[in-house]
Amino acid sequence: MTDLIARRRQLLGPNVSTFYKDPVHIVKGEGVWLWDAGGNRYLDCYNNVPHVGHCNPRVVEAICAQARELNTHTRYLHQGILDYVERLTATFDEPLNTAIMTCTGSEANDIALRMAEAMTGKRGIVATDATYHGNTTLVSHLSKSNAPEVGYGLGGYMRHVEAPDSYRIEDPDGHRFAAKVQEAIEDLEASGIGFAALIVCPLFLNEGFPSQKDGWLQPAADVARRAGGLLICDEVQSGFARCGSHFWAHQKQGVVPDIVCMGKPMGNGHPVAGLVTKADIMERFRSSFRYFNTFGGNPVSCAAAMAVLEEIEDKDLQANALKMGRLAHERLSDLAAKYDVIGDVRQSGMVFGAEYVLDRDTKEPASDYADRIINAMRHRGIILSKLGRHKNTLKIRPPMPFGEEHLDLLMDTLDAVMAETPVRL
Amino acid sequence: MTDLIARRRQLLGPNVSTFYKDPVHIVKGEGVWLWDAGGNRYLDCYNNVPHVGHCNPRVVEAICAQARELNTHTRYLHQGILDYVERLTATFDEPLNTAIMTCTGSEANDIALRMAEAMTGKRGIVATDATYHGNTTLVSHLSKSNAPEVGYGLGGYMRHVEAPDSYRIEDPDGHRFAAKVQEAIEDLEASGIGFAALIVCPLFLNEGFPSQKDGWLQPAADVARRAGGLLICDEVQSGFARCGSHFWAHQKQGVVPDIVCMGKPMGNGHPVAGLVTKADIMERFRSSFRYFNTFGGNPVSCAAAMAVLEEIEDKDLQANALKMGRLAHERLSDLAAKYDVIGDVRQSGMVFGAEYVLDRDTKEPASDYADRIINAMRHRGIILSKLGRHKNTLKIRPPMPFGEEHLDLLMDTLDAVMAETPVRL
Repeated sequence: MTDLIARRRQLLGPNVSTFYKDPVHIVKGEGVWLWDAGGNRYLDCYNNVPHVGHCNPRVVEAICAQARELNTHTRYLHQGILDYVERLTATFDEPLNTAIMTCTGSEANDIALRMAEAMTGKRGIVATDATYHGNTTLVSHLSKSNAPEVGYGLGGYMRHVEAPDSYRIEDPDGHRFAAKVQEAIEDLEASGIGFAALIVCPLFLNEGFPSQKDGWLQPAADVARRAGGLLICDEVQSGFARCGSHFWAHQKQGVVPDIVCMGKPMGNGHPVAGLVTKADIMERFRSSFRYFNTFGGNPVSCAAAMAVLEEIEDKDLQANALKMGRLAHERLSDLAAKYDVIGDVRQSGMVFGAEYVLDRDTKEPASDYADRIINAMRHRGIILSKLGRHKNTLKIRPPMPFGEEHLDLLMDTLDAVMAETPVRL
Repeated sequence: MTDLIARRRQLLGPNVSTFYKDPVHIVKGEGVWLWDAGGNRYLDCYNNVPHVGHCNPRVVEAICAQARELNTHTRYLHQGILDYVERLTATFDEPLNTAIMTCTGSEANDIALRMAEAMTGKRGIVATDATYHGNTTLVSHLSKSNAPEVGYGLGGYMRHVEAPDSYRIEDPDGHRFAAKVQEAIEDLEASGIGFAALIVCPLFLNEGFPSQKDGWLQPAADVARRAGGLLICDEVQSGFARCGSHFWAHQKQGVVPDIVCMGKPMGNGHPVAGLVTKADIMERFRSSFRYFNTFGGNPVSCAAAMAVLEEIEDKDLQANALKMGRLAHERLSDLAAKYDVIGDVRQSGMVFGAEYVLDRDTKEPASDYADRIINAMRHRGIILSKLGRHKNTLKIRPPMPFGEEHLDLLMDTLDAVMAETPVRL
């Protein structure tokens, strides 16, 4: 282990973070389970990339079969990308019916911002102050936490608005958030930059997945449209039926975006990503920009992505996400009745968690406690994480085949760990 | 076929280019061969991504075995990425000993420019006027041909110098090119932008792979270093032993770059890419920028990439590239003795071609003729393309297991096609 960490430091450089104080050396995965090099088994309550389960046989066999047959670029005709894009766009509402395939969600968001520029002739982008949309030079500036000194001065085009927070900020209908977006748009206009797009994760997952009633995003979307800008929904995390009630989280939020970006779960870990948009936006982008992605939409990536769609449908994983989200909320609410340290319980289908506070009145974040809980859970064989502005909210976001027996194990273990962990050291 | 083209137009949008006037519908690949939906076989003299051959069994089995075992991100410890980076960096000269893994060459180049910014505090980049380095918002501006109106105004940081052209421009030792780079640097300094890096493909492949003696790039590298900038070699096309004499083309060019980017052939079509650099550059970048790539360096990508390295070594594909390049040069020279339309013959290992001209004195490009030859070759079952500033140079860049029997078939067919194709219509 020490040897691995030292080799990693030398070969990959410093500051390549690992999860946990005592990093895990994972060697095998299957369904919702992971195994480390010592043969210890972990219940995976964290990873959303292996969406239909680690090493899902349907996805693995689709990859193997296509890799044996052909893997090439999209400058030859191939049925795979057409069949996939047809099936993918069928999950969207009209007029979202055309797609670009890339390898990473970062690449998809990078294109989306250029599409907004091409459509509006402007460059100003509004995002929240606790989000993440990827790692290219341009989109890295959408994260307020990224150092602005490296990145070609593109931070000047971004405006960050206060992220929604249903536990601490009163905003039942999304009007307060919309007003913040409006202010940011006015600031962009006043500065001469102009407004091109609002980009958000419809579940605000990095922000701590606030509890919001259906349609909460409509006022902000209206504000963006009235100002002549686009609405980009980054569904890299929230998409592919995770929210349970809908296939795409923007549908739950009552909006039809101009562009929807997707990535992580799309190929169950195979590097495939993309975006779906309207014909007029695609046409404007394709006419003003010569875009080609060597690996994007290759037959193997399309086969992997197709198998994921099939698996979601065949196993009815959307219904499972809805059911498990509700059960998780019940179980977490039971824990909240038992432990004062739980200030709030939230869920959006197969994403759920609890916010830890030192005091329910002051809502002072129990960030250190959250950290200790996560590390203790890891040593009890349960993998999960934390997120939100205060890093005090449990981030529980398992593969979609997560069932009741897994939820029981998770919640029973969490109960036991919380019982033995002091809130203050 | 018409149906496929119409579906493609509707699902993927306009201007998604295909090769050939009469696009090919490829369904199967094996080694240096491709098959279309009608069962016709093509000798692949074009594709460099399936580096060790289409559907190479070693690579396919490595992908399948690892996909069945585990595919996850690099925030857990995993031996795969360490073993791969160790073996990869061993092919480089000191002090190039540390790596970042990404999914595409575009992502690698996008990082390289930020590394140059982090090291120099400047943003000015020098590239040639006939190159291509990828598709992110930032690196797309390295292509002079990309429309500047979409791309966040980043074109202002780029300076494009006249690409080397051994057939038309006298520059035996690279001093003329170095002087052009010097001028561009001075222009960047005078404009207040400052100079961060020179980025080139060491074989100048998009520019038409000019004939250059070993060490030709040294003067330009010296100029860049004296000005305090970095030398970035984009070996996305030229790397992994293609040039035959060396594993990396920059070694043939007599330089040790600060950063080397790689991509296309790295995983034989699996979306894996990356860069190799020095420890101090990695440290500066990692300290000033929080970079994480979800799919980058995952166990399956590393297994694919490792199998490619093993296959190059076991099959001695570097020696094959050297031998085949020399034989190709002989065969193309024979054709040049027979056909006046061949103005120049060039090769850099497993990349070779001939430049077509209407007149050997005026060197007027025979671009239309090149186009007709390529389309005629496609109908004779040989896949190749054209490149260079005038699009009049045959681009022959087959998978590395290309052998003498394949070369014979290619050259005999080319001879026959040239014999029946009028130079002027």
